[in-house]
Amino acid sequence: MCIFCDIVSGKIPCYKIYEDKDVLAFLDTAKDVDGHTLVIPKKHYENILDCPNYLLQKTILAVKKIAKHYVNDCGFDGVNLHNANNSCAGQSVFHLHLHILPRKNDNPVNFVPNNTAKFELKEMQQKLKMEK
Amino acid sequence: MCIFCDIVSGKIPCYKIYEDKDVLAFLDTAKDVDGHTLVIPKKHYENILDCPNYLLQKTILAVKKIAKHYVNDCGFDGVNLHNANNSCAGQSVFHLHLHILPRKNDNPVNFVPNNTAKFELKEMQQKLKMEK
Repeated sequence: MCIFCDIVSGKIPCYKIYEDKDVLAFLDTAKDVDGHTLVIPKKHYENILDCPNYLLQKTILAVKKIAKHYVNDCGFDGVNLHNANNSCAGQSVFHLHLHILPRKNDNPVNFVPNNTAKFELKEMQQKLKMEK
Repeated sequence: MCIFCDIVSGKIPCYKIYEDKDVLAFLDTAKDVDGHTLVIPKKHYENILDCPNYLLQKTILAVKKIAKHYVNDCGFDGVNLHNANNSCAGQSVFHLHLHILPRKNDNPVNFVPNNTAKFELKEMQQKLKMEK
């Protein structure tokens, strides 16, 4: 049982931002940083250590696409990427996921997600969601 | 003038870990976390927002290769990846770079690089460096 596989299958709902054949992106429910997004391959792999090259490549291109959208179209000024591999690195869900943490010039950088979110997830989804 | 371009050209020395036609990896001189590694495309792009897809793909595959090496061969138990895009995200060198922060089960995770390094860079390079 994997919560992200359940999100991919639709068994668990999510605030979807982007989807293509191989990759899904949705808002993290942490509600820490506005627009905190998780980008995952639909197929289950634990992390980058076991993810096949082709799928890791597709995932990073989706990350780029979403990051550009956030900066070019959604009012953010930059993004941090973060990814944890294995529990010693803080990985808690063992389905590969890359965090996109959108940043603004007036929102001080904090490597640890800082609790500055102002918007509800549904509202952020409306602002951020993409067509394929 | 870009410090990472100078590292690529050899004008500035580095503790090289990995190199192929398109990508270079070397130890961060912060000396914060043992094995803190920067992975960069040799060609200059500011960050993931302007890096061409093919080169971003090559860079993430090098990250995977190095991360697997660290976990499988070098005594680390996992890694964090971190990447900053634009100054609001804490980017200070405007040449795309992905940080690999090696982790151990007995070294508490800290998203901010924690000052736990025990080894000199030259020593870490000897432990970590890879053939192509």
